[in-house]
This record gives sequence, C-alpha cells and structure tokens, in this order.
Amino acid sequence: MEFQEIVMARYATKKFDGRAVPSEKMDKLLEMVRFSCSSFNLQPWKIKVVTDVPTKEKLQAASWNQPQITTCSHLLVFCADTDLERRASQLYDAMRSSGLPAGDVAAFSKAVDGFIAAMPKEKRLHWAQRQVYLALANALNGAKSLGLDSCPMEGFDPVRYSQILGLPENLVPSVVCPVGYAASVGSPADAAPTAGRPLRADTPRPKVRLEKKDVFF
Amino acid sequence: MEFQEIVMARYATKKFDGRAVPSEKMDKLLEMVRFSCSSFNLQPWKIKVVTDVPTKEKLQAASWNQPQITTCSHLLVFCADTDLERRASQLYDAMRSSGLPAGDVAAFSKAVDGFIAAMPKEKRLHWAQRQVYLALANALNGAKSLGLDSCPMEGFDPVRYSQILGLPENLVPSVVCPVGYAASVGSPADAAPTAGRPLRADTPRPKVRLEKKDVFF
Repeated sequence: MEFQEIVMARYATKKFDGRAVPSEKMDKLLEMVRFSCSSFNLQPWKIKVVTDVPTKEKLQAASWNQPQITTCSHLLVFCADTDLERRASQLYDAMRSSGLPAGDVAAFSKAVDGFIAAMPKEKRLHWAQRQVYLALANALNGAKSLGLDSCPMEGFDPVRYSQILGLPENLVPSVVCPVGYAASVGSPADAAPTAGRPLRADTPRPKVRLEKKDVFF
Repeated sequence: MEFQEIVMARYATKKFDGRAVPSEKMDKLLEMVRFSCSSFNLQPWKIKVVTDVPTKEKLQAASWNQPQITTCSHLLVFCADTDLERRASQLYDAMRSSGLPAGDVAAFSKAVDGFIAAMPKEKRLHWAQRQVYLALANALNGAKSLGLDSCPMEGFDPVRYSQILGLPENLVPSVVCPVGYAASVGSPADAAPTAGRPLRADTPRPKVRLEKKDVFF
C-alpha cells in the first residue's frame, strides 16, 4: 500500500468490532512505532499496551466513555517520558552496543547532554509530547498499512489514567491510540449505540481539509 | 514502497545535493501533508515553503548554519497557528462546502467551539505544536515514499525565523523540514565540509533505537 493511499484511507475509527489483532501483526506495528524518529533520537516516550478488559473499562470511564477504548483490540497509551537524562543514557548505551565508534558517541552525547541541561524543566513535557506525536503518527499510518484501524484520542483524563495504570511521575499519558478492526456497517457491533455521535467513523466520509491556499504560503 | 520500508529507510539527511524537486512531485508531497490528521481536524498549522536562495541563506544563519537549509530543494517551515477560532471557522465552511448535513456541522462546531473556549491561552501553542508534528510526520514519510530525502529540524531560532519571514503573531515557527535529494557519497556535494558532524546522514548508518522492553510495557 503506497503511503499516499495510507494517508487517504486512514481515519479516526469511532467504534471497533472487538476482534483481537494477532500478536505477530501487533509486533510488526510496535516495531514501526519503536523506529519512529525523534529529536536527537532521544525517544522520550514509553507506551503502555492495554489488552485486558477490566483495565480498559476503567480507562474508558476516564475517557468520556468513548466506545473505542473497550471495543478495540490493543489500546496504546502514549506517555511522554520527562526523565530525559535516563533516556539519553540508555541511548548512548544502545549506540555503543550497535558498534558506533566511541568518539562519535562521545561527541553526540556532549551535544545532547548540553541540550538537555539547557532545557528549562517546565519545557520538558511539551518538548517530549511533540516527539510522542511522531511516534503516534507511525502507529496510525502503520496500523493502516497492516490492514488495521486506529483512532488518535486526546479526550481522556491524564491524571486518572496515571492512577489507573500506576505510572511513575516521569511518565505522562499524552495521547491514546486504540488499534483494531473498525465495526463494519450493519454488523452487530455497528448496531450498538455510539452516544449519538454525528460523525460515525466506522462509516468514513470523504475527508475534509482546509484549502491549499490556507495551508501553504 | 511499504510503510515499514519507509520507516526503516527514512533518515535525517544532513546534506542535500542542491537538485530541485520537480513541482509535480512537490505537489504530491504537500497534498500528503495537507491531509494529515489533527485533533478535531482543526489543522492548526500553516507551512511556509521556501525555495529562493537569499531567504534560505538568511534562515540558515538563524539555524546554526546547518547545511541542510541551503542545500535542500524546498524548505518547509512548519508554523503552529494559534488562531484556533479562525481555523475552526474555515473548517466549518469546508465541511459545509463538502456537502455534510448542516446538523452534523452544527453539532461538531458546538463541540469544537467548547473545546477551544475551554483551552487556556497559554496552552494553545503547545497543543497546536503537537498537531504540527503529525503533519511533519507526513512530510517525512511522504518524502521517502516519493524517493525524496528530508530532515526534521528543531535547531533554529523561531524569533528570527518569524522576523525573516514576516510572520504574523499567530504563526509560530515550530519545526523545519528541508526536502530534496541527499548528497550521495563521493559526489562533489558530499566532499564539501559539514562542520565536522560525527554522524554523516548522507551515508546513513543502521538505525539505533531503545530496546523493546524499554519502550513498551
């Protein structure tokens, strides 16, 4: 599937049919997420993969009861990781293990350590969250490339998510991405109520975007 | 090209060979960027496309003199647009023009207007910037899908960019993406100095990423 087709075919699926995605397929998707790019390659994210029903139900209650949370197969909770020093240290280890010359790693780590030290603490979360959205994009596009559906979601309570998942302070739930199979039109899953949402994403409509002249200049 | 191949083949190109990308190809790339997803489909971004040499040279001076800025074909300056009310209004117009039922647009606009009104002013920029990174991801992956190279760059002075490009206050340069053709190894472009960068991206090395166990949990 060409990337252009992925861009046009992907849509925010509002209801899934509950089928489980085979683990081999999910592994492929997670690898595409893991290989996302990020500033300085720092990968300031950690992703909680939720499949068990009781946890999904608790998270749904902290997500405006949106049906995607419980009808999806795998729920990816993208957390920004603000412990940049630890991430950097892990990255340097990985670079050394990969066989990169020590001098290259040293020069790189000097630049990255300086970058982290110069970033005000209150900017860390925002910076990390921007990177998280690059990983999110790989999840969304990667899912479609594997014949899966997904939905980027910001409508949840990060504090409650953090409590439910027992997260340490450095991991901040930033965006959620349920993955699975869209409920097809007319299926039993489709017939279940969706809280009167006007835009039924399991029956995707043509994409609406701003005009070219309003986007590029 | 499968998306998985794009993920593995794309890399942050540090030097381009100066060749111009044909405009039809660039149009395809910009369409993939335009069709990026965003929260509430608000598309809070505007992208300055820079091709002229004098402007590139000024921007390079505001980008730590990094060679990508002047050696690329097209420089995409991704700006976050904090005028969300205007973006929303344009979106509602586009939805109506696309033939969506008025009731659907009204229900949607009510939700979005409420969302915008509830967002503290100081959070707008951060929120918009996160969306910008989704559009950036489409530029990076889209470029590779078209046989082009690119480089996500945060290393620039947004205030000076704003002055050089004469941007209004609501448009905040947030990330830059040069697009073009990587300088191939041994070419005259490759022989030019790159300020001693240890990681020559025009000779990409195997990707280094954190281990699976450090990313997913």
